[in-house]
Amino acid sequence: MSYTLTEFLAHAVAMEQEAADRYLELADMMEAHRNDAVAELFRQMNRFSIMHRDSILEHAKPHALPRLNAWEYRWRSPPEVGGEEGFDYLLEPYNALRYARQNEVRAMKYYRSVAAEAQDEELRRMAGEFAAEEREHAQSLDEWIARTPRPSMTWDEDPESHEPID
Amino acid sequence: MSYTLTEFLAHAVAMEQEAADRYLELADMMEAHRNDAVAELFRQMNRFSIMHRDSILEHAKPHALPRLNAWEYRWRSPPEVGGEEGFDYLLEPYNALRYARQNEVRAMKYYRSVAAEAQDEELRRMAGEFAAEEREHAQSLDEWIARTPRPSMTWDEDPESHEPID
Repeated sequence: MSYTLTEFLAHAVAMEQEAADRYLELADMMEAHRNDAVAELFRQMNRFSIMHRDSILEHAKPHALPRLNAWEYRWRSPPEVGGEEGFDYLLEPYNALRYARQNEVRAMKYYRSVAAEAQDEELRRMAGEFAAEEREHAQSLDEWIARTPRPSMTWDEDPESHEPID
Repeated sequence: MSYTLTEFLAHAVAMEQEAADRYLELADMMEAHRNDAVAELFRQMNRFSIMHRDSILEHAKPHALPRLNAWEYRWRSPPEVGGEEGFDYLLEPYNALRYARQNEVRAMKYYRSVAAEAQDEELRRMAGEFAAEEREHAQSLDEWIARTPRPSMTWDEDPESHEPID
């Protein structure tokens, strides 16, 4: 798919807004379960996403951004865990961190693919910068994952959630 | 997980609202690509979801419903197709129908699991009824899928999207 600059900006704004919303949910959840360290990480990621969204909106100002469909920007949920645990397994900081990481990696890949296919010079430059930013986020999450105890209940069936960044 | 009636009603309302929103997007997309028959099916599913949401809200009236996290009710996107096609492959009616079907089946399973685990009699009855309703939706979609041409680009890697209903 070859994006116009306007389509790209619409995607980027929607993806940052989505990330901000999801990080806030994760932060609240971690705080409710008294994991203040991981809650603070997620709040920081929430702030980064908002700042990034606002800076993209500045770029986008002269353009009317197209409306997107939900599946074009939403975070992908982790595969469902069967049985009684159901929705609760994201309460484990390890799983919440991997969920976030998986979506940062998806965003990184999206930006990289736009950069690779861009005809427009500004589009290529912006997409490349955004990809590098998502890569840093994924790396921060990797550092946290490395020092977070692995719970008994994870979603090992999903290869993407452990996929290396490069 | 054992739900209270209020938690269950909150989930059901959020799931129906989500389904209504997604069906509207799918209907608009099909219409833009001049598939009026599938567009009309999706508009009908959108109306069913809204009616169901409103009837649940009537039940829920005496209760203050808890706020849910996004991953507790959102539709699961189909697995990503690599390469240039990217986000566009839901334009194929066959893929759009399977995407909807997959999420109806998820809703059905959710309601069934609540019914199976419910301690409360009213909760068990409602969850059972809702499961039967989602099952009918999935069956309608199956009939459409059976008579819709299969495009070259599908997501065969996902076993859940062809999973039998029972």
